Amino acid sequence: MSKRSTIADIATKAGVSVPTVSRVLHNRPDVAPETRRRVEKVIEDNGFVGGRARRALHKESAGIIDMTVPTLTNLYSVEIVCGVEEALQRTKLRLALSVTGEFLQLEQEWLAKVLNGSTDGAILVLAHGQSQELEALRNHRIPFVVVDHRGELGTDVPSVGATNWLGGRTAAEYLLSLGHRRIAMIAGPAEHRCSRDRIAGYRAALEDAHIPIDPDLIRFGAFTQQTGYEQTCELLALPEAPTAVFAGNDYQAMGVYSALHARGLSVPDAMSVVGFDDVAIASIATPPLTTVRQPLIEMGRVATSMLLRLIAGEPLDSVRVELTTTLIIRDSCAPVQSTVLER
Amino acid sequence: MSKRSTIADIATKAGVSVPTVSRVLHNRPDVAPETRRRVEKVIEDNGFVGGRARRALHKESAGIIDMTVPTLTNLYSVEIVCGVEEALQRTKLRLALSVTGEFLQLEQEWLAKVLNGSTDGAILVLAHGQSQELEALRNHRIPFVVVDHRGELGTDVPSVGATNWLGGRTAAEYLLSLGHRRIAMIAGPAEHRCSRDRIAGYRAALEDAHIPIDPDLIRFGAFTQQTGYEQTCELLALPEAPTAVFAGNDYQAMGVYSALHARGLSVPDAMSVVGFDDVAIASIATPPLTTVRQPLIEMGRVATSMLLRLIAGEPLDSVRVELTTTLIIRDSCAPVQSTVLER
Repeated sequence: MSKRSTIADIATKAGVSVPTVSRVLHNRPDVAPETRRRVEKVIEDNGFVGGRARRALHKESAGIIDMTVPTLTNLYSVEIVCGVEEALQRTKLRLALSVTGEFLQLEQEWLAKVLNGSTDGAILVLAHGQSQELEALRNHRIPFVVVDHRGELGTDVPSVGATNWLGGRTAAEYLLSLGHRRIAMIAGPAEHRCSRDRIAGYRAALEDAHIPIDPDLIRFGAFTQQTGYEQTCELLALPEAPTAVFAGNDYQAMGVYSALHARGLSVPDAMSVVGFDDVAIASIATPPLTTVRQPLIEMGRVATSMLLRLIAGEPLDSVRVELTTTLIIRDSCAPVQSTVLER
Repeated sequence: MSKRSTIADIATKAGVSVPTVSRVLHNRPDVAPETRRRVEKVIEDNGFVGGRARRALHKESAGIIDMTVPTLTNLYSVEIVCGVEEALQRTKLRLALSVTGEFLQLEQEWLAKVLNGSTDGAILVLAHGQSQELEALRNHRIPFVVVDHRGELGTDVPSVGATNWLGGRTAAEYLLSLGHRRIAMIAGPAEHRCSRDRIAGYRAALEDAHIPIDPDLIRFGAFTQQTGYEQTCELLALPEAPTAVFAGNDYQAMGVYSALHARGLSVPDAMSVVGFDDVAIASIATPPLTTVRQPLIEMGRVATSMLLRLIAGEPLDSVRVELTTTLIIRDSCAPVQSTVLER
């Protein structure tokens, strides 16, 4: 963080006394309206608003870290929140959590609350690739860290992600090692950076094994069980159905399970399934799901450590951090059977 | 909320001037240490601490509601949080969320953060039946609402829960209607109020159907998949195993699924299963789980509405609110088969 305006600077710029600035900051009535407006304008132009101005001038901490997530119904976000919570338990800070859905408007309302309230810094899991939030936070000199951004980020934006490309490659290599050659991939939405990276990893593994890429076997859709279900139905209707499916997340994988179950087909005998994330539903599924683990709790912890350093004005070791993915082998994959497709 | 001490009251009680109290509240250096201690003692004795004292005197809102939950790894808490978030989106308030685990120490650290920081009010989902938090919040005149308390609450404590007794009865009645007579129940921990209420509902249904209660069929344990798995193994080992299991929550039900799957038994042919809560895992399970829905999101919303009224100084329509449970029928139950136990 760069050096901050002091109460004396504001007084000088507004052409008023220091006690007058103080009266404005404390919302005292004994300030002429014109004077109040002038002081407030200087404060705003210098990147302070509301409670934050008061705190900055008193060198107080708000005691609050703000965090926004697109949803809590996907355990993916919940685990990141858990990591942030864990890291904050060792501090005096509280976590102000906001669920903004997939709606840009809610993200903006969140931003207004944060800018008008008091905050020491922000952690953002954003639904959208492009984001005006980042620019606004920067303008207001609020330290922030982005977790698993779905779009492209400037190289100067502090962020934490996972090795999506490696995760995609690991999943495909594992299925290849079991003898599978027709391996479908259900990715997330095509516009998400993470989906594209995982597909690139999957393609790399198939190309290394000299298996031609069949575009029919690469599918896109929301990170939901419904998408997994629908895409599996379409895959099963292909002239030559796949023997294995690599799903974009564990919810999609549950949809693969349902689609197979609805046809009386069982996992892994009829089809091998690999998920992505390793949220709690993976281990409790029947059969337990083999999946590519994203270290979500660790990502939350690391983002918090980075933010605490930014708040303290310390430099970061690295602006962009990628934590490694790992394949967790459970019971949802089996060696390919030559007879599996006779259905 | 009763009337609050004003800065003038504090000055009188401490035998100092109003500006002196103000200097103490703003942490100014120009106050004698002995005088500061005296003022601080009066403030504390009158139920104001830290930021809260400053706000109360300035009639400011902190813009923060504090919430504590025992865990976010159980979707049960997550859904209550979602309901609170939804309700707060229509306000200018932010939600400060704290995960205290099952540890009393963390709950107390949370309380210290809340009392020393600024808060407009608190929503508590507590891990423990007895709680000093409630007393402390009351002493500090911080409005609060308790959600689904696990122990006994005084009749004057604002709280929101669900109709656990009715939920237990509904589940058992449904299984009876399918012809089941040996119906096991895996409850939560015996010391939880909700477990005891659900067992009472289950017993009432069986007694109405003139079926004697078999203590071997009533089991206790944590609200986890592991408990569901272990208790099912024990139930299957009984001389006369049950044909249906009513699990204490959806995670335990997933454990019932696993235990059956591990023996090559399928749901619902080999055993009917009913869960409790209807969190997201219930609908995505294979087969989709029949379960007693707790309106968790609504519980979060109602708790927030109640809290906002308390903050505004308005009376509550009812101090204790119970929202109704509903049976959600999916595919995990079937009519009893006379041959089912030949295994």
